[in-house]
Amino acid sequence: MSGGVEWALHCCVVLTAAARPVPALRLAELHDVSPTYLAKQLQALSRAGIVRSTQGQAGGYVLTRPADQVSVLDVVEAVDGARPAFVCTEIRQRGPLASPPEKCTAPCAIARAMYAADDAWRASLRAVTVAELARTVNGDSGADVMGTVGAWLQQRA
Amino acid sequence: MSGGVEWALHCCVVLTAAARPVPALRLAELHDVSPTYLAKQLQALSRAGIVRSTQGQAGGYVLTRPADQVSVLDVVEAVDGARPAFVCTEIRQRGPLASPPEKCTAPCAIARAMYAADDAWRASLRAVTVAELARTVNGDSGADVMGTVGAWLQQRA
Ligand code: FES
Ligand code: FES
Repeated sequence: MSGGVEWALHCCVVLTAAARPVPALRLAELHDVSPTYLAKQLQALSRAGIVRSTQGQAGGYVLTRPADQVSVLDVVEAVDGARPAFVCTEIRQRGPLASPPEKCTAPCAIARAMYAADDAWRASLRAVTVAELARTVNGDSGADVMGTVGAWLQQRA
Repeated sequence: MSGGVEWALHCCVVLTAAARPVPALRLAELHDVSPTYLAKQLQALSRAGIVRSTQGQAGGYVLTRPADQVSVLDVVEAVDGARPAFVCTEIRQRGPLASPPEKCTAPCAIARAMYAADDAWRASLRAVTVAELARTVNGDSGADVMGTVGAWLQQRA
């Protein structure tokens, strides 16, 4: 998994606190990270339709839909793609006892076990939304962190 | 995830069919793969205590315990390690609104969501044993594939 996932998720949580579009530079400043690096993650989110950038003086990034309709899985797949981590290279079709291709139309038992685990991973990530993350961040801190983030963004706008 | 996982799982399933230790060279021949590459996976399995190699004329690899006590997770962790794919770099401790370290003793909400998915992935892999894989391979084929593998190993011993 790429390091971009952590940045992209933190950016999405921050965007839930913003009253107006947030320039990429502001997100980079807030996270103290290279704007070029963050731009890559924001572009991935944009390609996946999770954020969009508005142009002009007050331009910047916004979530395209309510944060309770953006799952953690949406963000992870935007950054890292939707392909399972396990790749079957059809080992069973090799060697002296190779299975003939016509017997290999369905994945092998081993691949199925690996894909089932991947499904469980995705289901877990699908069950959590960015809105919930924002609420949990607040709950964890025992203070209105998201409010503080929102105020900081407002003041720097 | 490394490609070694597929090889290691196939090797473990094959070992369930063997009546005696199987030389690494024989496993490589059966899978038509470089012995050097396969040796790396077998060493990982050996370090994790899943297989051991016996020395001597009839030496080779055996499972160290019954295949219904070897989970797919055991094999995956032997090859790829037990560390979650998601790595939290403590982004929350950066920038102008950084959380102070003393407030960061527990993982952040985002990291927790990622770790929960990792747990679900591991639970899924833990629920399947190498013995079940071998039975499913047989069931899938509609023939006694594992018996054929066993006979081939016997004949080449
Ligand atoms: S052939 Fe790829 S996992 Fe079995
Ligand atoms: S600080 Fe690492 S996931 Fe939030």
